[in-house]
Amino acid sequence: MEARELSCWNDCATRNAIVDFVRDVTDQSGPDYIPPEERIAVFDNDGTLWCEYPLQVQLYYFLERFGDLLRRQPELAEVQPYKAIAERDMKTLITFDKQQIMNAVFMASGESTPEEYAVAVNSWFQTAVHPELKRSFYKVAYKPQNELLMFLSANGFKSFIVSGGGIEFMRVISQKVYGIPTHRVIGSTGNTKLVTDKEGPVVTRIAGLRDFNDKDEKVININYCIGKRPVLAFGNSDGDRAMLRYTKAGNGRSLTLLLHHDDGEREFAYDRDFKISTLSAALDNADADGTLVVSMKNDWNEVF
Amino acid sequence: MEARELSCWNDCATRNAIVDFVRDVTDQSGPDYIPPEERIAVFDNDGTLWCEYPLQVQLYYFLERFGDLLRRQPELAEVQPYKAIAERDMKTLITFDKQQIMNAVFMASGESTPEEYAVAVNSWFQTAVHPELKRSFYKVAYKPQNELLMFLSANGFKSFIVSGGGIEFMRVISQKVYGIPTHRVIGSTGNTKLVTDKEGPVVTRIAGLRDFNDKDEKVININYCIGKRPVLAFGNSDGDRAMLRYTKAGNGRSLTLLLHHDDGEREFAYDRDFKISTLSAALDNADADGTLVVSMKNDWNEVF
Repeated sequence: MEARELSCWNDCATRNAIVDFVRDVTDQSGPDYIPPEERIAVFDNDGTLWCEYPLQVQLYYFLERFGDLLRRQPELAEVQPYKAIAERDMKTLITFDKQQIMNAVFMASGESTPEEYAVAVNSWFQTAVHPELKRSFYKVAYKPQNELLMFLSANGFKSFIVSGGGIEFMRVISQKVYGIPTHRVIGSTGNTKLVTDKEGPVVTRIAGLRDFNDKDEKVININYCIGKRPVLAFGNSDGDRAMLRYTKAGNGRSLTLLLHHDDGEREFAYDRDFKISTLSAALDNADADGTLVVSMKNDWNEVF
Repeated sequence: MEARELSCWNDCATRNAIVDFVRDVTDQSGPDYIPPEERIAVFDNDGTLWCEYPLQVQLYYFLERFGDLLRRQPELAEVQPYKAIAERDMKTLITFDKQQIMNAVFMASGESTPEEYAVAVNSWFQTAVHPELKRSFYKVAYKPQNELLMFLSANGFKSFIVSGGGIEFMRVISQKVYGIPTHRVIGSTGNTKLVTDKEGPVVTRIAGLRDFNDKDEKVININYCIGKRPVLAFGNSDGDRAMLRYTKAGNGRSLTLLLHHDDGEREFAYDRDFKISTLSAALDNADADGTLVVSMKNDWNEVF
């Protein structure tokens, strides 16, 4: 695949930086050459590969299932953040940070096998529509990012999703939406139990967040799950800064990027005050960190 | 790659089962067709892909480093299983099971970055020789299994190592020895800490076993790391039985195999009494489990 196929990217500094980086690290005779097995790229998901505003996609799914949950545990309606969810009180809901929300989501998980959960999520995706963007959740991924994933793949990179979102939720759509197989998705995980019946071991998802994959934890999980330091990292919030700096601190050439949601026309304009996915320190320190800021408004000629 | 390239396998029932399985699940018009993204194969490592007798490869590395460790912590020489290691008392050492040994190995881990550890292991591999087989540890992998890995890859399968061995140890050699990239290696993990200095986050390996990847834990980690149930699983000990049964309990066609070390001439003959990697219940229940037993002696015409 040729660089010209990054057609949703304007001819701008960030696009040039991407194209130059890929050209240089794939040039076997050049000083920055990186062999294919070291071409590891990591992408945050919510707000980096697809829309996370005003709520992450997984939360819309949770809202949809929340009625069932309340019927089972009506007392939840008195406890935050469930109370805000029950009352569709978005003003209160967005005062919680992502870890608090993910904790609540995973605490409310009913018992199911991973297969049953995948069927339920998949079936929701068939018809669910983003209430603001008025389009299927299958179509809230950013087109320039899908081009970038394809461009990297064509140049021998392996791209991984490294997200604070639930690992099993993303895995339902990762192949279809991004062309990324389930084993290259790293995310927050819930607790599981294993019971062996006469057919063999049965894994069951149970209540509770096991690991919230954000900030330093993203770096630790990259080390555990990939076993190599990435050479390219793309994020959009302070939760991604550790992973971007970790990438940048490697030997040899690397590229780190931060998507800035500054396009209130075509998407949404938000950064510091969006508590569920704040962009503040990572933006203020982008220069010092060696991270390039991608302006959705100026750098992309198409969004969806 | 054609089935005839499984040339180290004799024309026997297990080879036929492998060839039939791969033919059937890749036949798009057949009833057993499995799409490429579902063609997940999992392999134990020690004793399945390479020799584990009389000690696992990682333990030979540990023995080599043990002198340094004793100089730092001489009191260890009085505590088992370190005492047995210090005295090269193999008779006592083999009375411990793999979890006890791995616990001891990980407890004795000096602090290092993953990169430093990989350099040290890699450098050991350059010259170390298996004391019984009198060959480089790079060459203790089984040739028929490497053929099988290549055969599966050529037929659209993704193979993963799912081993009780240390994940970082295996990752040093997985690409070179098996053609398996680091992110498709699942193993036992040690503790890490993360400290952010002015260059960014630094991951450091610290003392302690975080997760011993054996028995039920193999199934749980397959679910977390791969996110799909395998359709082929290959093991050689009771520690692999859960993963084999989990594979077999999936919907649709699957194949599970157990390597029996019954070849005292070309390798080693052991099963029930080898405490560090016992093969007993998995062998007794192979028929009931639907698992095929591969005889190293009868089914392989070459071993290394």
